[in-house]
Amino acid sequence: MSITTVAAYAAPAPKAPLERTTVSRRPVGEHDVLIDIKFAGICHSDIHQVNEDWGQAPFPMVPGHEIAGLVAEVGPGVTRYAVGDRVGVGCFVDSCRECDNCLAGNEQYCTGGLTFTYPAGPDGQPTYGGYSTHIVVDENYVLGIPEGIGLAEAAPLLCAGITLYSPLSHWQAGPGKKVAVVGLGGLGHMGVKIAHAMGAEVTVLSQSLRKQEDGLRLGADHFHATADPATFTELAGTFDLIVNTVSANLPLDDYLALLRTGGTLVNVGAPADPTPVNMFSLIGGRKQLAGSMIGGIRETQEMLDFCARHGLGAEIETIAVDQINEAYERVLASDVRYRFVIDTSTF
Amino acid sequence: MSITTVAAYAAPAPKAPLERTTVSRRPVGEHDVLIDIKFAGICHSDIHQVNEDWGQAPFPMVPGHEIAGLVAEVGPGVTRYAVGDRVGVGCFVDSCRECDNCLAGNEQYCTGGLTFTYPAGPDGQPTYGGYSTHIVVDENYVLGIPEGIGLAEAAPLLCAGITLYSPLSHWQAGPGKKVAVVGLGGLGHMGVKIAHAMGAEVTVLSQSLRKQEDGLRLGADHFHATADPATFTELAGTFDLIVNTVSANLPLDDYLALLRTGGTLVNVGAPADPTPVNMFSLIGGRKQLAGSMIGGIRETQEMLDFCARHGLGAEIETIAVDQINEAYERVLASDVRYRFVIDTSTF
Repeated sequence: MSITTVAAYAAPAPKAPLERTTVSRRPVGEHDVLIDIKFAGICHSDIHQVNEDWGQAPFPMVPGHEIAGLVAEVGPGVTRYAVGDRVGVGCFVDSCRECDNCLAGNEQYCTGGLTFTYPAGPDGQPTYGGYSTHIVVDENYVLGIPEGIGLAEAAPLLCAGITLYSPLSHWQAGPGKKVAVVGLGGLGHMGVKIAHAMGAEVTVLSQSLRKQEDGLRLGADHFHATADPATFTELAGTFDLIVNTVSANLPLDDYLALLRTGGTLVNVGAPADPTPVNMFSLIGGRKQLAGSMIGGIRETQEMLDFCARHGLGAEIETIAVDQINEAYERVLASDVRYRFVIDTSTF
Repeated sequence: MSITTVAAYAAPAPKAPLERTTVSRRPVGEHDVLIDIKFAGICHSDIHQVNEDWGQAPFPMVPGHEIAGLVAEVGPGVTRYAVGDRVGVGCFVDSCRECDNCLAGNEQYCTGGLTFTYPAGPDGQPTYGGYSTHIVVDENYVLGIPEGIGLAEAAPLLCAGITLYSPLSHWQAGPGKKVAVVGLGGLGHMGVKIAHAMGAEVTVLSQSLRKQEDGLRLGADHFHATADPATFTELAGTFDLIVNTVSANLPLDDYLALLRTGGTLVNVGAPADPTPVNMFSLIGGRKQLAGSMIGGIRETQEMLDFCARHGLGAEIETIAVDQINEAYERVLASDVRYRFVIDTSTF
């Protein structure tokens, strides 16, 4: 097994448009799986990474951490997957495997050094993501995509899906619980679907009522515009759990006031700048302001199985590789319902 | 039973020094208990209230919500207490009794209208606190002070004690847990004692090492100065729970970095101004920034019983009523170890 050169779409430099190129994938090792990538989702964070909004990164950069495909080859030690299996890869492809978090199955919070699917591992060595035809990943970081979810609809679950599933599961969305999802985009629309499937009463809090029909169709019970001040009066003290998917600075005290006593506002998106929070907003009702980041491997598999059981996939618009730059523009303009997925057969 | 005129110390106007006066207590009703107040703690919030830092309030104001005394008379319907019983009163003397929080025993978060011990009830009617010789309180809002705690040492438990006990209990301080208490004052010193008695490994985070000897004597296992930047490097990722008792604006992101994955930073003190928080500080390790306010009646009784079982009381300096204004100055100068308690026999 030798190093393989594969087609990819990469940003040659920070903030540069992506262009067709090739990258090398490592030889398939003992525990590796070579995946024939079929679809790769475009996550808003891909754009942040290309723009170096979150810090310096190696270039050329091949984004993409919402990967779905078929196993094309397995290393001799691989036991979990076989050629032809439907599989996915999310935001990371390795972790230290030794820290408390790895041992607990919370690899996403690995303190020993997480290897992101892209742009790099803990040593700074570049890694190349899913805007490509193939990827080689250790089997322990590969997910099985159950029958019942199309590969294209499954791709965004590997980041958007787990990013919402993990907090909804951790903070126990379910029957009898009132859950709000702030923002109805790539993340938020999966939050609505999943929270609804978990049995919670779901409210969308969106800037305007523009997406109301969609929200209700996706499973929301209620839909309110946050631009309308009446929303905050009417819904004060309502929610057990609010999941905020918006990366812009929101007036968090206003949202904390929407929680019931003991409720939690979880941020899965985050602005680069700090947000002012009045501690009295928390003290007055034993409230919690929390954060959550993707999910562990075991939990991601659980999410995929949950989605298959409930017939859930992302709402997608499939694009060809040469539409990636245009898709980035449309993501920035919030002009996507609700996720672009690259069809790699167009390479 | 007629209206009783009793001695009290009151601030006649906002920010004014307190002076001796008299106030009326209501007749002892069907379910009321007349308490002969023996001791009343001085809480920092008494000063905030007198200064109207937290908003307008009626004057004259009789502060005091850390009350310990003996039952002097009971109404005909009283079943829980008898004349001579050792009892206490905390921050509130009534609540709506109908909202979800009241029904769950979380009266401190009553949404129907809490009647504070002082300065007022939900209707704005003034109420008079514990800097007085007597108070009349509905038996359902009176706590029993077990034998084994002196009344003077018990008084501060009614606010400082429960303010720390409630979050330590709610967020499960105990064996195997690493707990930090930020600030070693009236609140913090009770946090150290209680967390230690719960079996947690306790660290004090104090501005300097000035109180180190005290901290270790009170039950802390470790003591670090927050003025030393090395503290934040050394202790990164350490704590399951941090209870912040400091009312000043702290760099919360630095403290959140001291939490383990899944850890919680609970604020029981709060600055008047919002504090900037970087959401990435929460997202990176599924962390929680929370608030907590005193405790419910059932939980306060549980705390008193816990303290009696473990031989815990506040560290106090007893003062005469005519030393109240001087004591306020010393509280503001952090010159108290760790709570002033007014001996009402000096009225």
